[in-house]
Amino acid sequence: MKVKVAVNGYGTIGKRVADAVVRQPDMTLVGIAKTRPSFEARRAVERGYPIFLAGSGSRPEFEQAGLPVAGTIDELIGLADIVVDSAPEKVGKENAKKYRDAGVRAIFQGGEKSDVAEMSFNALANYDRAGEKRTVRVVSCNTTGLARAASVVVPHWGVQHWEATIVRRAADPSESDRGPINGIMPTFHLPSHHGPDVRTIFPDLSIATTAVVVPTTLMHVHVNHVRMARPPPDAQHVIDRFRRTPRFHIFAPWEHVDGTPQVMEFARDRPNGRPDMMENVLWEAGVRVDGEDLYFFQAIHQESIVVPENIDAIRAMFGLAPDAEASMAITDAALGIPHP
Amino acid sequence: MKVKVAVNGYGTIGKRVADAVVRQPDMTLVGIAKTRPSFEARRAVERGYPIFLAGSGSRPEFEQAGLPVAGTIDELIGLADIVVDSAPEKVGKENAKKYRDAGVRAIFQGGEKSDVAEMSFNALANYDRAGEKRTVRVVSCNTTGLARAASVVVPHWGVQHWEATIVRRAADPSESDRGPINGIMPTFHLPSHHGPDVRTIFPDLSIATTAVVVPTTLMHVHVNHVRMARPPPDAQHVIDRFRRTPRFHIFAPWEHVDGTPQVMEFARDRPNGRPDMMENVLWEAGVRVDGEDLYFFQAIHQESIVVPENIDAIRAMFGLAPDAEASMAITDAALGIPHP
Amino acid sequence: MKVKVAVNGYGTIGKRVADAVVRQPDMTLVGIAKTRPSFEARRAVERGYPIFLAGSGSRPEFEQAGLPVAGTIDELIGLADIVVDSAPEKVGKENAKKYRDAGVRAIFQGGEKSDVAEMSFNALANYDRAGEKRTVRVVSCNTTGLARAASVVVPHWGVQHWEATIVRRAADPSESDRGPINGIMPTFHLPSHHGPDVRTIFPDLSIATTAVVVPTTLMHVHVNHVRMARPPPDAQHVIDRFRRTPRFHIFAPWEHVDGTPQVMEFARDRPNGRPDMMENVLWEAGVRVDGEDLYFFQAIHQESIVVPENIDAIRAMFGLAPDAEASMAITDAALGIPHP
Amino acid sequence: MKVKVAVNGYGTIGKRVADAVVRQPDMTLVGIAKTRPSFEARRAVERGYPIFLAGSGSRPEFEQAGLPVAGTIDELIGLADIVVDSAPEKVGKENAKKYRDAGVRAIFQGGEKSDVAEMSFNALANYDRAGEKRTVRVVSCNTTGLARAASVVVPHWGVQHWEATIVRRAADPSESDRGPINGIMPTFHLPSHHGPDVRTIFPDLSIATTAVVVPTTLMHVHVNHVRMARPPPDAQHVIDRFRRTPRFHIFAPWEHVDGTPQVMEFARDRPNGRPDMMENVLWEAGVRVDGEDLYFFQAIHQESIVVPENIDAIRAMFGLAPDAEASMAITDAALGIPHP
Repeated sequence: MKVKVAVNGYGTIGKRVADAVVRQPDMTLVGIAKTRPSFEARRAVERGYPIFLAGSGSRPEFEQAGLPVAGTIDELIGLADIVVDSAPEKVGKENAKKYRDAGVRAIFQGGEKSDVAEMSFNALANYDRAGEKRTVRVVSCNTTGLARAASVVVPHWGVQHWEATIVRRAADPSESDRGPINGIMPTFHLPSHHGPDVRTIFPDLSIATTAVVVPTTLMHVHVNHVRMARPPPDAQHVIDRFRRTPRFHIFAPWEHVDGTPQVMEFARDRPNGRPDMMENVLWEAGVRVDGEDLYFFQAIHQESIVVPENIDAIRAMFGLAPDAEASMAITDAALGIPHP
Repeated sequence: MKVKVAVNGYGTIGKRVADAVVRQPDMTLVGIAKTRPSFEARRAVERGYPIFLAGSGSRPEFEQAGLPVAGTIDELIGLADIVVDSAPEKVGKENAKKYRDAGVRAIFQGGEKSDVAEMSFNALANYDRAGEKRTVRVVSCNTTGLARAASVVVPHWGVQHWEATIVRRAADPSESDRGPINGIMPTFHLPSHHGPDVRTIFPDLSIATTAVVVPTTLMHVHVNHVRMARPPPDAQHVIDRFRRTPRFHIFAPWEHVDGTPQVMEFARDRPNGRPDMMENVLWEAGVRVDGEDLYFFQAIHQESIVVPENIDAIRAMFGLAPDAEASMAITDAALGIPHP
Repeated sequence: MKVKVAVNGYGTIGKRVADAVVRQPDMTLVGIAKTRPSFEARRAVERGYPIFLAGSGSRPEFEQAGLPVAGTIDELIGLADIVVDSAPEKVGKENAKKYRDAGVRAIFQGGEKSDVAEMSFNALANYDRAGEKRTVRVVSCNTTGLARAASVVVPHWGVQHWEATIVRRAADPSESDRGPINGIMPTFHLPSHHGPDVRTIFPDLSIATTAVVVPTTLMHVHVNHVRMARPPPDAQHVIDRFRRTPRFHIFAPWEHVDGTPQVMEFARDRPNGRPDMMENVLWEAGVRVDGEDLYFFQAIHQESIVVPENIDAIRAMFGLAPDAEASMAITDAALGIPHP
Repeated sequence: MKVKVAVNGYGTIGKRVADAVVRQPDMTLVGIAKTRPSFEARRAVERGYPIFLAGSGSRPEFEQAGLPVAGTIDELIGLADIVVDSAPEKVGKENAKKYRDAGVRAIFQGGEKSDVAEMSFNALANYDRAGEKRTVRVVSCNTTGLARAASVVVPHWGVQHWEATIVRRAADPSESDRGPINGIMPTFHLPSHHGPDVRTIFPDLSIATTAVVVPTTLMHVHVNHVRMARPPPDAQHVIDRFRRTPRFHIFAPWEHVDGTPQVMEFARDRPNGRPDMMENVLWEAGVRVDGEDLYFFQAIHQESIVVPENIDAIRAMFGLAPDAEASMAITDAALGIPHP
């Protein structure tokens, strides 16, 4: 008996989650909800995903474009065991009531505040806690990246204090109406909201984050400095530990991956169906241990990193796998992510 | 009996040609040549492509990276019926002698001058002429885009004169050491070299081109203005004709593809193994007929547009298909390019 | 007796026009109108420009910022002989009625449609026609650039047909909320509106223009191809003629100005008070004559090119100078633009 | 009796230092050295700066361009009391011997290693130490920015530990051959060299820095987190202290300066002769005190921030002013930098 999944909102995250759901052995996609026709809606039709009308969507507009409409969002909800809400930021909050009234479980994205759901989720960190929940929030791309890293660092070497500067991409590749074209925009919330967001998962972690926005579309980069409690003897220990953990990809120096352009080129060469990088990306040359101090860079692909987490959240909520490791192994095999 | 293909140079074009060769029913890849280990070399190994040492390559360097070396470039040439040379610009010229001495056929890329080979090739335009050639040059990305378009416009509506401004991407996505970051660089060769290069294929075409370089990595855009000899009644005729021609992709207004960022997003959504756009990309809203005057924009994906042409050139040189249409149909099916 | 000028709208154009007015021997600035406090408002105060409240502006907001408010926009209009309207696009149209009711003359910018005023103006082209007008529209940056060039080409060599591709900057340097960061956006109006706009000044000119938007903030670049009626013997004639015309700047090859980044660096080195390039910028290497065909690139600084035209329009409307050449000479001397 | 200054190397820094020298009451510019003609050389001639041939420069090349050559670099050195070396990185090291042999004092830039000179200099931090030196190194733009900030923080509130992430511009505005166009490049030296470089001035400071390169040309941004020893009660104390220190510029929220594009727009509006920002730029909204923790952003204009420091270094070496404050006051008045 497969879990019936609906995807409400078919943008950057939604279309990836839909593709991921259909690849899972224990899930089925009952449909996706979208407001207007577009090249992405056409692709959904080609892939055989039933399209339902979201919010202000107009049936005639779809039909003029030759795209069949399967029904309304309410009908879609009626078909589903769970809705993955990937509507634009803040809209998820409004949708939550709808799901509650319909008695359907729901997953929200990190653009919503944490009180939208019963818990904030990351597969490596707190998979087991999602078992009895009816609503779960998958944290944002940056928080997911930090939470994954914390899932390695906290248990193995302890954290006295963690500092991270988040160098954010300004827009996704297809968001051509956003800038800046040439400049750096500081985020004047000091420290930034990412630290508190990580603490929705690691409540006791001492972490302070800051952020700037820069003119690139490819990936975020985190500059991390951790003062450890029980430091390992050298960087190689850290590299090895990350390498043995699911959802980390570490580049060696001879691979000549100098920054995010080459990381994305690596992703484009992958035979995964989509040029995504769902792992935290680290560089051997970008990890350093100096006494108690651990420095490391990690690059985060904002468009895709939360996709496997959404899948694991479904599996956790429905008890489809015995534990996090089992779920992640299924997810990663289905998505073409190398699993250690 | 499959044609044995070697790929010399495993960069932007070479890696794509290699992937394309292994997908063809009538070709086999005997190996690729590369100078140094990299993430791309690792991927070649994972895909089972034998790596041979190109030019100044060092065997120990590969072996330290754990990448097996199958032999030297000369050994690779000895295994092949034909070499696709995708070495950096100007190096193909040097390699030509090597191929000639080895008595192996060769295909060169458009970065080389036209005298590197017996003919300049484009599948839609002059497939038949390649039948007896031992060396063929596949014209550059921009010339390929213009030659394809001319293959439609010239026979159907005639050309009194063609003007094109080529708005060039400044670097490929992974070339992070090239700029400009913020500026426009005119190409001071007036008219630009693209017009004469198109005439290596359409010798009688009256065409004048100009070019500027702009800070983007995604695609080139051609701004075309053609004074036609026998104009069609309206733009819809032109759109329909392009739509019925292989290797053209036309976006409708309701698809909301506003520019190259959305075209590349479309490509990333494609289930082709690589986020490429091997067709000329046009927009319905970007085609206009006004009396004798035809205006149209086309976007050209510099990284991939010549890949199917390389495959067709092989097929033409070895007589593997009865004609251009048959070859293109095989190529397109193998590469996941919709064929009209 | 100096002409009393008010500037309504203190953005990119307005602030430059205000600075230009105060430098003129025959004009005085009675004040500027602005809606909200900003670093630019602070600078206006430092320069001694009285600030009046535009549109929805709030006096307490200015006062809390320590910026004195001299009155309302209506009071400002009452003080002026002429208002230079540099409000955001389309707002000028709304303001026009206000000026008419107040019986004050007005100049509008090219973002407004041509029917906002009695004529469209360019100093080189039609200075004399502005003599009896109460409302004048200074055409947009791109149209000004084309009109200036036409003022040279049309009388000297005649124009059979003019083609221009306008490679547009996507945002001004300080507009950090606009993109694209990485892409090219065609303008799907074919031919573009620039041709008809040039014909508001040269009604009989055969001109067709096309446009693309690219990710840069510095300047536009025009790629021009003119079929001339009475061609000069060579490019040097064209270069010399442009060099002898006011408001053209021609770079020699040994100056190593490869594109717009170096043009703007040149402007930053200028001792003009502001790093602007109010001339059409050409390159000797970017001018070519081939029989009837004239090709030339020109770079247009969208932020400043219309500033001297606004000044000349005032002078023309009030008969402050005997002719265009006299007015331009005064303007250029005041603004630090070398005058041939 | 004015100090006779030569400027060897007329690029981004050299041309600004030359302009700054001629504005000082106690210095005179005996000439500048340059290797090839360019628009910048032409400007030097227009400003009356004698040009001497640097390194591989060719006299005929200058003369063909109509630019007079006053002599060789050795002759220039012979005329000077001090040479400001602003040659490209690493060339200063080679030039050092030449200056030593000629018995002339010299100032080097921060691109050279610290052993190129007797001391590393920052006006706020160690002006007095330069009094008897024959060679001084003005630290780099980023180190100058950090050293200035440390000159405020260290004495007033003490530093337990300072962390800074340096978000670096990838190229200067006119360097159109450098990228990346779209990407983030981590600096794999961890921690980065900036911390040790700050310690050439503050030997006892506990500081760790990291760096990434991003696709912008305007400014660097530093993200600072300082654990203070004697924290002030609130951020306002910090803001006030910075505001009262020379060479800091603090933006208020109502000024709507959201990032580096607006900072540079502010600089372009300045009546300083060049659109530079020679101060450390802070934002009130970008300073936060939380117990022992001080967070602040600062933007650093890489092209100009070291210019006043070069001037002060000259004054310090020749004893032209009684102390740092006196020298900075003269420099700032001459350069149009508001002095508190």
